[in-house]
Amino acid sequence: MTDNSFGRLLRVTTWGESHGSAIGCVIDGVPPRLSLSEADIQIWLDRRRPGASRFTSQRREPDLVRIASGVFEGQTTGMPIGLIIDNVDARADDYEDIKDRYRPGHADYTYQVKYGIRDWRGSGRASARETAMRVAAGGVARKVLSAGITIRGALVQIGPHAIERERWDWDAVEANPFWCPDAETARQWEDYLDSVRKSGSSAGAVIEIVAMGVPAGLGAPVYGKLDADLAAAMMSINAVKGVEIGEGFNAARLSGEANADEMRMRDGKVSFLANHAGGILGGISTGQDIVCRFAVKPTSSIPTPLRSVDSHGNEIDVATTGRHDPCVGIRAVPVGEAMMACVLADHLLRHRTLGG
Amino acid sequence: MTDNSFGRLLRVTTWGESHGSAIGCVIDGVPPRLSLSEADIQIWLDRRRPGASRFTSQRREPDLVRIASGVFEGQTTGMPIGLIIDNVDARADDYEDIKDRYRPGHADYTYQVKYGIRDWRGSGRASARETAMRVAAGGVARKVLSAGITIRGALVQIGPHAIERERWDWDAVEANPFWCPDAETARQWEDYLDSVRKSGSSAGAVIEIVAMGVPAGLGAPVYGKLDADLAAAMMSINAVKGVEIGEGFNAARLSGEANADEMRMRDGKVSFLANHAGGILGGISTGQDIVCRFAVKPTSSIPTPLRSVDSHGNEIDVATTGRHDPCVGIRAVPVGEAMMACVLADHLLRHRTLGG
Amino acid sequence: MTDNSFGRLLRVTTWGESHGSAIGCVIDGVPPRLSLSEADIQIWLDRRRPGASRFTSQRREPDLVRIASGVFEGQTTGMPIGLIIDNVDARADDYEDIKDRYRPGHADYTYQVKYGIRDWRGSGRASARETAMRVAAGGVARKVLSAGITIRGALVQIGPHAIERERWDWDAVEANPFWCPDAETARQWEDYLDSVRKSGSSAGAVIEIVAMGVPAGLGAPVYGKLDADLAAAMMSINAVKGVEIGEGFNAARLSGEANADEMRMRDGKVSFLANHAGGILGGISTGQDIVCRFAVKPTSSIPTPLRSVDSHGNEIDVATTGRHDPCVGIRAVPVGEAMMACVLADHLLRHRTLGG
Amino acid sequence: MTDNSFGRLLRVTTWGESHGSAIGCVIDGVPPRLSLSEADIQIWLDRRRPGASRFTSQRREPDLVRIASGVFEGQTTGMPIGLIIDNVDARADDYEDIKDRYRPGHADYTYQVKYGIRDWRGSGRASARETAMRVAAGGVARKVLSAGITIRGALVQIGPHAIERERWDWDAVEANPFWCPDAETARQWEDYLDSVRKSGSSAGAVIEIVAMGVPAGLGAPVYGKLDADLAAAMMSINAVKGVEIGEGFNAARLSGEANADEMRMRDGKVSFLANHAGGILGGISTGQDIVCRFAVKPTSSIPTPLRSVDSHGNEIDVATTGRHDPCVGIRAVPVGEAMMACVLADHLLRHRTLGG
Repeated sequence: MTDNSFGRLLRVTTWGESHGSAIGCVIDGVPPRLSLSEADIQIWLDRRRPGASRFTSQRREPDLVRIASGVFEGQTTGMPIGLIIDNVDARADDYEDIKDRYRPGHADYTYQVKYGIRDWRGSGRASARETAMRVAAGGVARKVLSAGITIRGALVQIGPHAIERERWDWDAVEANPFWCPDAETARQWEDYLDSVRKSGSSAGAVIEIVAMGVPAGLGAPVYGKLDADLAAAMMSINAVKGVEIGEGFNAARLSGEANADEMRMRDGKVSFLANHAGGILGGISTGQDIVCRFAVKPTSSIPTPLRSVDSHGNEIDVATTGRHDPCVGIRAVPVGEAMMACVLADHLLRHRTLGG
Repeated sequence: MTDNSFGRLLRVTTWGESHGSAIGCVIDGVPPRLSLSEADIQIWLDRRRPGASRFTSQRREPDLVRIASGVFEGQTTGMPIGLIIDNVDARADDYEDIKDRYRPGHADYTYQVKYGIRDWRGSGRASARETAMRVAAGGVARKVLSAGITIRGALVQIGPHAIERERWDWDAVEANPFWCPDAETARQWEDYLDSVRKSGSSAGAVIEIVAMGVPAGLGAPVYGKLDADLAAAMMSINAVKGVEIGEGFNAARLSGEANADEMRMRDGKVSFLANHAGGILGGISTGQDIVCRFAVKPTSSIPTPLRSVDSHGNEIDVATTGRHDPCVGIRAVPVGEAMMACVLADHLLRHRTLGG
Repeated sequence: MTDNSFGRLLRVTTWGESHGSAIGCVIDGVPPRLSLSEADIQIWLDRRRPGASRFTSQRREPDLVRIASGVFEGQTTGMPIGLIIDNVDARADDYEDIKDRYRPGHADYTYQVKYGIRDWRGSGRASARETAMRVAAGGVARKVLSAGITIRGALVQIGPHAIERERWDWDAVEANPFWCPDAETARQWEDYLDSVRKSGSSAGAVIEIVAMGVPAGLGAPVYGKLDADLAAAMMSINAVKGVEIGEGFNAARLSGEANADEMRMRDGKVSFLANHAGGILGGISTGQDIVCRFAVKPTSSIPTPLRSVDSHGNEIDVATTGRHDPCVGIRAVPVGEAMMACVLADHLLRHRTLGG
Repeated sequence: MTDNSFGRLLRVTTWGESHGSAIGCVIDGVPPRLSLSEADIQIWLDRRRPGASRFTSQRREPDLVRIASGVFEGQTTGMPIGLIIDNVDARADDYEDIKDRYRPGHADYTYQVKYGIRDWRGSGRASARETAMRVAAGGVARKVLSAGITIRGALVQIGPHAIERERWDWDAVEANPFWCPDAETARQWEDYLDSVRKSGSSAGAVIEIVAMGVPAGLGAPVYGKLDADLAAAMMSINAVKGVEIGEGFNAARLSGEANADEMRMRDGKVSFLANHAGGILGGISTGQDIVCRFAVKPTSSIPTPLRSVDSHGNEIDVATTGRHDPCVGIRAVPVGEAMMACVLADHLLRHRTLGG
């Protein structure tokens, strides 16, 4: 099956393994005459890049992107955009010892069962390295979206420690190693994550992605719902176990009145008095902020030994040493932003088919 | 755009509005020589049918399904299966008074903005009536799945009241009007929902769908992940605001050790010692139970007046009288089961493309 | 697989067998606020209807179409349009005697080998009856196309007898039972087909479809070429064995100069001095007439006995009596027009995604 | 729109322009555990490579393919296969003088109208250079097909000069610069093409592709017909203007008896006494040879001056000097083979979804 593409009209197809010679993607459906340079994409890749702080993986990848097609004299041509990133810090030998071992929480076992073969070098195709191409595609998708649309992400929970929403400050997001919008909580997370690391453990996280300036009318009934596509997009990110829109699971607890987004006229326009719906009704954007959250499980590779088996049927213990993110959720923030950008850009093109 | 289909190889396309002459669907990709009769589908529609208890809508629809194509002498032929259900209890006149009004929490406003026209009779295409065709398609999908796969759903929370998981009893599910697996909580819900209704309010819910007997190997990296498809499928159901797999959002709180599904050999086979992952690793089934939950917001149409506007820009109050589900989540249980069946059957066909 | 749909953004999914209770289709992606009534579709179905002359099949089908969804108060709503035609003249018993027999030139053998089951009543799904839904869909597609686009078809060859192109007269097309644009040739065909029928034989045909008023710019490189989509659309019609655009196979005989469509400025606009290309260059429309031809094989079911086998491995003779078109190509004219309309409407929507 | 992919389950997405840094493709859906090396692909690219004789373009491209992903230890992994060919002989400066000029028969004008921008270097995306990736993909597709399936192509006509079919000899195909199966005609073509070249002209061609050993049962009704997919695949090749299956357009001239492929039992199996149908009935393979032909127009770029216009509205003359194939149809032979391989491999995977 052809499972390595997403999007319907802005279609991104990614290829490449963690420790192959390169990774890349093809972005098809980008309208012509948009200005696009490698720098426009690199800026987003630099945000995602590992090694930015002691809380993220020590793999040293410059992640320099090349535009191999689809751009001419600084503008998109409407032709497919081929992007390539060479794998520089590939060290396949580091993984020789796990080639027969099923690491709990990883895709080792399921890939082996499904395909009867797997590229075990650094998790191969299942590695989060693939998300670099999502971020690159997101950079292109942002060009497709009008200048008035802003997409931002933030980490709102690490382990059991959630932020205080009253302290939300978008400026804080860029000022700490966690993309945390609450500076005080960010400081607490530093201590918490240090202790997690010391104890050989790991922590999960919750990420919130907000898109502002999205016009009403994007999305569609019944299986092209904007929220359904966002759910698939976010759930397809490595280690994600849950997705919610607006109030999300909390909506189940609310009464109909408490959850209602009432409407009034303001300056001659329809204005919502609340946004419990997260900016989507009936699968279509309302013109309010699109608010999406997703949960990332704690890093599966931890120093603490875990019981497992190998491909020969031997019972083993698995303990991960070396490169190790105590909380993979941190690096998921720019990935979530990118997926939001891709989904919105795709729906923008889909909306255009309705005509004037 | 072509937004009324779901599935890749088992592809379901639905059509019809709440108060048109009929609703229907086409199911393409069903393998030949499966026994299939209208009764095989009707059994699932009867479970979904409104009017089954005082807690669900009073619309009286027999929902009798006709197989119009694709079945010959009791067997599928590999040709597209056309299903049709006539709308018997359509009362378009009941809705004349809301044709210009935007009901909070409904798709009235977004449809109008997007399409510049909407069929306002009983919410038209946005009505949950469309889910009857999902349930019908799910009945066909179950035929595609092997006999060893069992899909069951349960309501695990209404409003703030969750079940006690230690009391989980699948047999209880059929014995109360809520599909509740915890008989004691079901009794409490009766009182709770009566009070909700009396106060002119409504309640949300959480549904859990479990698929047992699913072999390891269904699903695929990277954008064909089983969990990504389940997320889209469940989020596309009316009023759903969140989806999670296994531990879901709770995984964010757990440590790496606590969330690990360790493995041991049992009788010569790989055996997992826990199922925090909900039966999916790297987007591929592990052979354990597939566990998926989704949150349904409280019914938007409530007797309590809500502030809104109409299509002429007047500020109005909207209060819903007449047919009214205090908790639409109840009826979502068979719909969630059907979506699980469709996603699994689709992935089963997708898996076959790999060959022996 | 999901093989019963065509089109990407205007997506038509057909269902139904020749002698089932009904046939139908779902047309997804139709933009909203187009006026559409059953009469708008019926007019095209009436052109295709068998029984119009002694040269086409005697099956008596009124082919009355019902719009079951997607239209509200005379306008499309953007929702899927469900169309249904009841099978009135189904006479399954007529086919009992062929249920085990493989008719040469028919799909009997291939369906049986592929699916292990087939609905043998009147060729089941393989019957040209399915083309009624193509014609109906074409009627909707014409509504999507702007008023300035005209699509017409003509029969340009029956058996070895081609028209004289100098006598081409579009008005003649409606004035003879063959859709022949050359009145004189039409008269000759009458005699020819009478003799073909008397001899228990059948004749093939070539159909030409011309779309006028198509703006430059529809189509796309590389696999979305307008001509590639036309080729698939026409080749998918029953009994079609060849498709060509513009000069088609004759282009192979021409020199580069003779085949060139030179350009000059006329009234400030680019003007082509010839149209050997059939209105398509690099897969994209030039603004000239789109010209497409396809060849239909002679009717396979003929009174003359043919050697064959049955499903039990017996050698048999097959001779067709009863309902019998000596030249099925005649009825393919409105079907070809409809496919042209569907392909163009699809590409019009695709083109819109590029934006202003 | 996403127009740079073809195939449903074996999905090939190509990217790259004639004079960009590289061209490439992603092949998604390849089953795991097939042996695959760069040499397996290179062998087919070497057949297509320009510069092989004085009758094909003098561009000097080694066309060395790299497998960048999806293969591990010599075997496919089921992951997307990324292929890259660097453009070595790119000479963008050669094209400066045509950047504003619309060459008759080329896509210059239509790309400009559609996209408002085009990469004019060597025809950019519209160049036949893209077909290198089709040939590479075809090499992978052949691995997917069982060893028993053989796909071969031949040139059967250049200009008005067709081969003598009685002299058909597959061995001859490799022994002349035209892939001609008739050695005597090949010698005549040499003289003919030399005279065409001298006169500053060009010639069209007809290519025939034959697939032997294809089992009965590939393909599907109604829009997934094997012949419909072949028609689209071949028509999407640069300069192709017509496609036919089996008798093709000649079928229109034949009587029903003459066109019948009668059947008899041979050694307990169904055996066809002729193959007018080209191995496909009702869109499904019969088990006979699949026979497909397509017509290639004469090279549009010729030394003889042609009237045209430029993008500023000036009337100009266009004469092509330098690199120049008098008959582009020659190089289309390996491309047609590759498209046949891709279509068959795609349908093989599609067929598997039926199970059993």
